[in-house]
Amino acid sequence: MERGLGGLYTRLDAARGQALLSRWPESEWHPRSGLLMLPGPRPLELVGEIAVICAGTSDLPVAEEAALVARYAGHRVVQYTDVGVAGLHRLLTRIEAIRRAHALVVVAGMEGALPSVVAGLVDRPIIAVPTSVGYGASFGGLAALLAMLNACAPGVTVVNIDNGFGAAVVATQINRLALGLR
Amino acid sequence: MERGLGGLYTRLDAARGQALLSRWPESEWHPRSGLLMLPGPRPLELVGEIAVICAGTSDLPVAEEAALVARYAGHRVVQYTDVGVAGLHRLLTRIEAIRRAHALVVVAGMEGALPSVVAGLVDRPIIAVPTSVGYGASFGGLAALLAMLNACAPGVTVVNIDNGFGAAVVATQINRLALGLR
Amino acid sequence: MERGLGGLYTRLDAARGQALLSRWPESEWHPRSGLLMLPGPRPLELVGEIAVICAGTSDLPVAEEAALVARYAGHRVVQYTDVGVAGLHRLLTRIEAIRRAHALVVVAGMEGALPSVVAGLVDRPIIAVPTSVGYGASFGGLAALLAMLNACAPGVTVVNIDNGFGAAVVATQINRLALGLR
Amino acid sequence: MERGLGGLYTRLDAARGQALLSRWPESEWHPRSGLLMLPGPRPLELVGEIAVICAGTSDLPVAEEAALVARYAGHRVVQYTDVGVAGLHRLLTRIEAIRRAHALVVVAGMEGALPSVVAGLVDRPIIAVPTSVGYGASFGGLAALLAMLNACAPGVTVVNIDNGFGAAVVATQINRLALGLR
Amino acid sequence: MERGLGGLYTRLDAARGQALLSRWPESEWHPRSGLLMLPGPRPLELVGEIAVICAGTSDLPVAEEAALVARYAGHRVVQYTDVGVAGLHRLLTRIEAIRRAHALVVVAGMEGALPSVVAGLVDRPIIAVPTSVGYGASFGGLAALLAMLNACAPGVTVVNIDNGFGAAVVATQINRLALGLR
Amino acid sequence: MERGLGGLYTRLDAARGQALLSRWPESEWHPRSGLLMLPGPRPLELVGEIAVICAGTSDLPVAEEAALVARYAGHRVVQYTDVGVAGLHRLLTRIEAIRRAHALVVVAGMEGALPSVVAGLVDRPIIAVPTSVGYGASFGGLAALLAMLNACAPGVTVVNIDNGFGAAVVATQINRLALGLR
Amino acid sequence: MERGLGGLYTRLDAARGQALLSRWPESEWHPRSGLLMLPGPRPLELVGEIAVICAGTSDLPVAEEAALVARYAGHRVVQYTDVGVAGLHRLLTRIEAIRRAHALVVVAGMEGALPSVVAGLVDRPIIAVPTSVGYGASFGGLAALLAMLNACAPGVTVVNIDNGFGAAVVATQINRLALGLR
Amino acid sequence: MERGLGGLYTRLDAARGQALLSRWPESEWHPRSGLLMLPGPRPLELVGEIAVICAGTSDLPVAEEAALVARYAGHRVVQYTDVGVAGLHRLLTRIEAIRRAHALVVVAGMEGALPSVVAGLVDRPIIAVPTSVGYGASFGGLAALLAMLNACAPGVTVVNIDNGFGAAVVATQINRLALGLR
Repeated sequence: MERGLGGLYTRLDAARGQALLSRWPESEWHPRSGLLMLPGPRPLELVGEIAVICAGTSDLPVAEEAALVARYAGHRVVQYTDVGVAGLHRLLTRIEAIRRAHALVVVAGMEGALPSVVAGLVDRPIIAVPTSVGYGASFGGLAALLAMLNACAPGVTVVNIDNGFGAAVVATQINRLALGLR
Repeated sequence: MERGLGGLYTRLDAARGQALLSRWPESEWHPRSGLLMLPGPRPLELVGEIAVICAGTSDLPVAEEAALVARYAGHRVVQYTDVGVAGLHRLLTRIEAIRRAHALVVVAGMEGALPSVVAGLVDRPIIAVPTSVGYGASFGGLAALLAMLNACAPGVTVVNIDNGFGAAVVATQINRLALGLR
Repeated sequence: MERGLGGLYTRLDAARGQALLSRWPESEWHPRSGLLMLPGPRPLELVGEIAVICAGTSDLPVAEEAALVARYAGHRVVQYTDVGVAGLHRLLTRIEAIRRAHALVVVAGMEGALPSVVAGLVDRPIIAVPTSVGYGASFGGLAALLAMLNACAPGVTVVNIDNGFGAAVVATQINRLALGLR
Repeated sequence: MERGLGGLYTRLDAARGQALLSRWPESEWHPRSGLLMLPGPRPLELVGEIAVICAGTSDLPVAEEAALVARYAGHRVVQYTDVGVAGLHRLLTRIEAIRRAHALVVVAGMEGALPSVVAGLVDRPIIAVPTSVGYGASFGGLAALLAMLNACAPGVTVVNIDNGFGAAVVATQINRLALGLR
Repeated sequence: MERGLGGLYTRLDAARGQALLSRWPESEWHPRSGLLMLPGPRPLELVGEIAVICAGTSDLPVAEEAALVARYAGHRVVQYTDVGVAGLHRLLTRIEAIRRAHALVVVAGMEGALPSVVAGLVDRPIIAVPTSVGYGASFGGLAALLAMLNACAPGVTVVNIDNGFGAAVVATQINRLALGLR
Repeated sequence: MERGLGGLYTRLDAARGQALLSRWPESEWHPRSGLLMLPGPRPLELVGEIAVICAGTSDLPVAEEAALVARYAGHRVVQYTDVGVAGLHRLLTRIEAIRRAHALVVVAGMEGALPSVVAGLVDRPIIAVPTSVGYGASFGGLAALLAMLNACAPGVTVVNIDNGFGAAVVATQINRLALGLR
Repeated sequence: MERGLGGLYTRLDAARGQALLSRWPESEWHPRSGLLMLPGPRPLELVGEIAVICAGTSDLPVAEEAALVARYAGHRVVQYTDVGVAGLHRLLTRIEAIRRAHALVVVAGMEGALPSVVAGLVDRPIIAVPTSVGYGASFGGLAALLAMLNACAPGVTVVNIDNGFGAAVVATQINRLALGLR
Repeated sequence: MERGLGGLYTRLDAARGQALLSRWPESEWHPRSGLLMLPGPRPLELVGEIAVICAGTSDLPVAEEAALVARYAGHRVVQYTDVGVAGLHRLLTRIEAIRRAHALVVVAGMEGALPSVVAGLVDRPIIAVPTSVGYGASFGGLAALLAMLNACAPGVTVVNIDNGFGAAVVATQINRLALGLR
């Protein structure tokens, strides 16, 4: 499926990505997240930022999709990629930086606990993205999805499994509001 | 379950609400949504607003919970309570007003289609709240929840079934950002 | 699986379709929807019509299956292929034409909201076809199926996921009744 | 929940029904199906008919809801109430009469097999209504619902569990088309 | 998975089946049902019989597995392969013959209605085998499984989806009892 | 729901049972299993028997329903009521007696393991009845139902959750065959 | 259901608990967790301990069941009752004490994230108990159960929803091993 | 996915395993369970042991993963690989040996009954591992998972489907405690 955002293609496999890259050699091709971006809008002179947070390598394709889409729309994005709940200290040492963001995209598979933990530490809108990473009783991301919908800390909203694109769109809407752009 | 927001009690039944009201006669008691509010923080002088939208009377308790919680936190809230997908014209005639809001809480049971329709018309963050209104294959709100997670229009994030409180918290976080309050 | 309607084969893959086409070169082969049609019954001189409606390219194979089957049975079919809920105006500008149909087949994946919206605008029998288009929490079309079963506007009945053929059969039964053919 | 059709209330419990009956003594109150009807539109001089079919007493409340709603809208309705799949001969001896109907509402709980069997015998649109009658692995009507969606005979469409009202609305839409009423 | 019954292998794919056939050329290889049988026990001089019933070609592999396993164990088996609920007359014309069986294995996919219908006509133990034939809301045979567990006619017991082998074992246990073999 | 077997009522609550008992004082009323039996058919002079097996007191209502129904139909029934998988030795010491039965009804809630264990020890048809006994992840008997459908030992068939009546009907069909009664 | 551990009754409601207390006035009755304990075995002189951890008042009944059962069996238990993931600092300030335990019972409802977080901090066997606390998409504890089964940190095993008793039994087995008691 | 335990890789396919083996020829490669182990820590001089139990060849890859991981961590492991519930005698003849273990990993697919049976015979912590072995209504291991969570005998805790690694980690934690290693 392709979902366009101006000159943006998502969920491309390698063959399709290469083919489009041949057609538009000036575009950028990101194989891990399956994104192809045509030369985009000029970055806004933004001071506020969006944080994209995940626990490790297996959630990176979805986190990268979110980060790239938000950057493509002209936003400043800071990525935190190794801050899972099983190693809290890495999260805690970065928490001051994370609190500077206007909106947070928090990506997690398996038990999907990361958004709850972050929401207990940061009073900002958190867009939680469950991923299909896992096996057995993760049921293709269902476990993470349910966990995020039941987050005990307020401030968490949820998008579809693996939907980094959708999370990025909402984060940019919030960041624009925070920057006074209408 | 009670979830406090300062002096705020949610999900009280009538007996519990009356009992607390007797103890704190200066509080406000809203039986339809089960909210009891102690004298709250002073309303902020807000110019931006939050829209709370639903289709009809059966979804009102949840919509009212969202609206009351946001107002209690000092925000200006405009409610639209009869704008379901089965009567699009009522929605379309109000869409200009709705677009003025910084954040939208859209509440719907049954097939949960309202957030998708609103997101196609308004470029603002939409917090979708599925309700347990329905019967049979609504499975206690599951049908609406799944529909909202699959919304084809970007800009929609979802909270737990009947979680008007959680939606309100996120809407106020966004509205504060939009108003330059940190 | 093959389900015959006279000389009609459904759900063929490309290899099987080509093989049958070689055997019966006078037949029509539609690769997108996997239909192969032997020379069919002569079109009836029909004045009433069946509308087949969907939101976009990803639902087209199922919509096409419905349209081709109904045409093969001799009925006049009008297809509307870009009228999803995320772009209501395209739907609203066509609604007068759509109202002329005797029966409507409405095909939608993801959140499956289109039949609800159409049923609020048209007082005709609507046969809703959920498709397996989507990912994550669409669970292979389950989200759309549940949404359609919970449509808040009366007039909607539902067939199995991706069952364009079954929807077409019912639409032709209704159209024949409306045309006074028994 | 109430769903009005002019002066029609559905899903009322006994207390609510009696209260409304006291207010409008000229209305009709049907306790088994929970319907209250205000004096309705004048019956049309209809010659075609709608068949409402079920297997026995436990499905009668839903079948009665469908039959009463269709009659209230002015349609001629014939009810067949003891024709389940476990006693095929009762169904077969009535099949000629059933074939005279323009549209069939077929109501069944438990394994939900009746619409498949009827669809194999009658070439008319069949609106299948699963009921929540059953226990254990019927899961509140889910077993019947899934069976009906998978009916092997074409001509079957499905509405929500226990939704006799919705089935009646579609049956009257079809019957009006068949009668040349637009 | 292999489940041995003396010299019997089940669920073999073509490659594995051919390989075993090369090793034991005196065995029988049935590619449609994936069974390989080494020279078996000598058929019993049985007068009673087992009926194996299904609706059509798509359920044949499972029905054949049941029939071959029972024959391999020395039992007389009569197969009825085109008697689905959508064509009742074919079933009714054979019902006298079917009633002669001591035990019936009834195989059905999609809505799984056949065992209910047969149980209404025959007072013998019916072992119902749901198959994974179907698509969409059949959920890999779940719809048929649930339908069979909810069969309204007594006399029906159920085995796992596609488990022709298990059904055959039970049928032979019953037939042996009926023949006075212990 | 009532399911008659001549003069037999099942699933009656206490009030309904007492009322029918007043009407027919010559009937037998079994409150634990909710069965009311009018004076029944005369017991057959049966030598073979049916075993009804369960693990303990919580499964007794269902086991009793099965045993009473089979006895009512004139069959000899032996009940084993404390032979769960958590205390294998009680089962093993009775296994010789159990092997004498022609058919076994094995009733179990929670993990539903008892039929698998019994089937490994006894080469007779086993009708497994899952019960709704349990909590949490037993999901109203679903865990036991799935376990029984997946029994690794052949010879097990399954009926609906709590369906002692249905299991008894099949056991009597088998016992009649084994006794040479047609 | 009663599950005895010597003189221990679990899951009693108030009426049943009071009745048993009248019969055995020397027993202890814990209404919140529904436990009644007859005078138990004499406490062992244990130096090692079991930690029972939960996030707040709503999970206390299950946590208390676990703690009381382990104490009844003679073990030293330390309870930590306000250390949820939404307030990490309370957990972190107690972590040194928690690490002294031989086995940990971690009780959590809603998103069930607490065991993952604790397992990242403590290298001891963690028995996770999901509770049915929650609403909507918690599905009676299913969300917490799935989250715990998918815990990303090793060291976590899971028992049934609300099964504080079972968790306590395993914790005492481990503690006995750690104390050199066999 | 790789989960490291020092120099341990899990869930490798054959290609990946061979590639890593070429890079580190001194490592051990176990193709059946997909484990690659770099030269590990020196085995502890352990006297206590861990038992790893399963029913047969189809569950062996998961059982082997558990056994190899525990051995790699320096523990003594005894494997029992043919002791399923369908052949109780093989289990009973080994039960004295099994009772010597400090912790038991019990692996089972299909109906997942083995942990319940073992827990009735051995008073030690049992870590149950459901496997995805099965078909149809096993739903990828869900049936076994639910059965294990509902085990009627206390002493059973459960890990994710196919998670031999996680079970091994917990077993080694327990064994270390039992050996007085902290």
